Amino acid sequence: MRAAPSPEEIRRHNLGTLLRHVHLGGPASRATLAERMGLNRSTIMALTSDLTAAGLVTEELPKETRKAGRPSLVVRPESARVYVLALDVGADRLAVARIGLGGVILDRKDLPRPRGSFEPEDVLSQLSALARGLVRKARADTICVGVGVAFSGIIRQEDGVVRYGPNIGWVDVPFGEELSRRLGLGVQVAVGNDANLGALAERERGAGVGLDDLIYLHGDVGIGGGIIMGGRLLGGEGGYGGEVGHMVVNPGGRPCGCGSRGCLEAEGGERALIAASGRSLTDMSGREAVEVIVDAADRGDSTARDALHQVGDWLGYGVANLVNIFNPSMVIFGGVLREIYLGSAAQIRSRLALDGLTAAREGVKLRTSSLGDEATLVGAAELAFGDVLSDPLETLARVNVG
Amino acid sequence: MRAAPSPEEIRRHNLGTLLRHVHLGGPASRATLAERMGLNRSTIMALTSDLTAAGLVTEELPKETRKAGRPSLVVRPESARVYVLALDVGADRLAVARIGLGGVILDRKDLPRPRGSFEPEDVLSQLSALARGLVRKARADTICVGVGVAFSGIIRQEDGVVRYGPNIGWVDVPFGEELSRRLGLGVQVAVGNDANLGALAERERGAGVGLDDLIYLHGDVGIGGGIIMGGRLLGGEGGYGGEVGHMVVNPGGRPCGCGSRGCLEAEGGERALIAASGRSLTDMSGREAVEVIVDAADRGDSTARDALHQVGDWLGYGVANLVNIFNPSMVIFGGVLREIYLGSAAQIRSRLALDGLTAAREGVKLRTSSLGDEATLVGAAELAFGDVLSDPLETLARVNVG
Repeated sequence: MRAAPSPEEIRRHNLGTLLRHVHLGGPASRATLAERMGLNRSTIMALTSDLTAAGLVTEELPKETRKAGRPSLVVRPESARVYVLALDVGADRLAVARIGLGGVILDRKDLPRPRGSFEPEDVLSQLSALARGLVRKARADTICVGVGVAFSGIIRQEDGVVRYGPNIGWVDVPFGEELSRRLGLGVQVAVGNDANLGALAERERGAGVGLDDLIYLHGDVGIGGGIIMGGRLLGGEGGYGGEVGHMVVNPGGRPCGCGSRGCLEAEGGERALIAASGRSLTDMSGREAVEVIVDAADRGDSTARDALHQVGDWLGYGVANLVNIFNPSMVIFGGVLREIYLGSAAQIRSRLALDGLTAAREGVKLRTSSLGDEATLVGAAELAFGDVLSDPLETLARVNVG
Repeated sequence: MRAAPSPEEIRRHNLGTLLRHVHLGGPASRATLAERMGLNRSTIMALTSDLTAAGLVTEELPKETRKAGRPSLVVRPESARVYVLALDVGADRLAVARIGLGGVILDRKDLPRPRGSFEPEDVLSQLSALARGLVRKARADTICVGVGVAFSGIIRQEDGVVRYGPNIGWVDVPFGEELSRRLGLGVQVAVGNDANLGALAERERGAGVGLDDLIYLHGDVGIGGGIIMGGRLLGGEGGYGGEVGHMVVNPGGRPCGCGSRGCLEAEGGERALIAASGRSLTDMSGREAVEVIVDAADRGDSTARDALHQVGDWLGYGVANLVNIFNPSMVIFGGVLREIYLGSAAQIRSRLALDGLTAAREGVKLRTSSLGDEATLVGAAELAFGDVLSDPLETLARVNVG
């Protein structure tokens, strides 16, 4: 049992909590905030005037009100002024966005994966050029309070080192540090695994709002997993947990980028689908190829249907295993797995019915990502907003000096 | 942020914490307890005199002391007086023990699994007869403060219903309630999954002391998993998580008791080992058969060696999958998997090296259960001690009335 917090600690905590409410829940009246936070209106007023003075929120009269008496002012996040940079490094594309407080995407640039080379040097210079471009276009009175990166690989979160990128060939690249140096924005660059960040994003703003036990499966060239159990992201000893794409579902099966064989991502991912449908990637991205195959199957193409059936069966083994191991309330299919799931849901569900234990599967819902293409980017933004949401005034003061 | 706790809440919390210290750490001087709990000696004295008056601890002068001045009294748990009943229902045996505060096994009775029938009615009457026998033998001044059951199946922990016992054929049996009625001891009967309880026991008193991220694999006829992540047992939505024995490692492989094929327990468990070594179970238990096979392999029997090699390979796939998914700091092999691991460690390790991602496996230790045959029973006891350790005086008052 800890000592009672000081008034200053309480104020700081309350400032962060209030800002988080309007960041995640959208504009809200002082009266609503007072009720949600269990505080009286004079405390809320003191908090909102601090946040207003710092330029983090504005307060205004509601557009209309039905109640008699003095209306409660509405508190809005300063979405156009306070923003983060969110970066997404997939094996097949780079994306950079300016995302305003409240989760508004203000501006976004995408770059398809450069054919062939995916060297750290190239990725770093392309990313920082994209990011600096977005910052330059922003109004002069705006302020960047953090940078977050969703990376398709195994990340050491403390320092943003990419321990391993199975589909891009990176090993122990000091990515976060180097990106921070090149951006020169004076703010922290936080790096996380893309599937982990997608899971957080779906829980805060997507298909999994309010759920404590969910699994987010992210399809890029490979398959990543973000697992939230008891409301917390599963990390394991070094924070490297969640690598469900390298669960072997078919011993001795198709070779995987990690050096093993029969991994879930080798049997149930984009590459397997493209190979099984007899296509190649000469003139389109993996993402586009998957869409073409799912469309073809919808139109009755039997090769495409068989390919989806086969890949869906392996995905079903993976999902059944995860359901038996985790007893989640939801499994969310994101990235390119969103399309693959839509084309093979029957097969996945039938595998789950066969191989999932009743108690473990009876409550589970299978869903597609509701943030779609933006899940990992939104997750990167939430990572970047972490500091300002836990200590708003201190973070803003630090950024303004930096 | 919660309101500050009342003095009475603080006292109750401190009483529980102090009792837990001597329960898990053994006898300790008042001075040591003061240091560990960050409290002053007069507060410790007040707490220990309350616990002494309740008969939960005794205080005595240390046997010898090297320091000058008044020696600090040593606080001991009343192991001989305050106990719980711990029950273990495996698919191949029943065990009941009286376990004293501090974790001392005071008395124990085992019953091999009745050949053939494993009906709830038989198990309930055998268990309650065993348990009542132990209680009758206890001294008149002793007191039972709880009953805990480790059950080899999927348990709904709120009410002790056995949702599913894959190797005994039970579905939705109201086991805890019925056992409580038959025991008539006036104390709560808490039921948990045996592997989950084994995991807790190994973390509190066994191979995993001090670890926050560990996986305990329990071999009975099947394979159960207890997974502790971030210091908390992984439960999932309904508390049914951890069923790693029904992860399919070999699609289309050996039939499993759950109705599926190629599950980890069907390929890497006791039955698979016995089948692969060409033995049958006419004159010995599965546990004994496993010991015979591991002994034979040690003496160079090539059939036994091949059988262990094959089973170890499947276990290795399971372990590698779990390491990739969880990045645990330790995997502990308990129950009959202890012996199987000892006979096939090289194969398991080699699979892990091939199929585990470097970042996920580099920190992991593979260990055998250090509580051995007692892990699940000790876990059941810890479950039963839960109430008295969180609110000692209130629990004792309730039990004394009941």
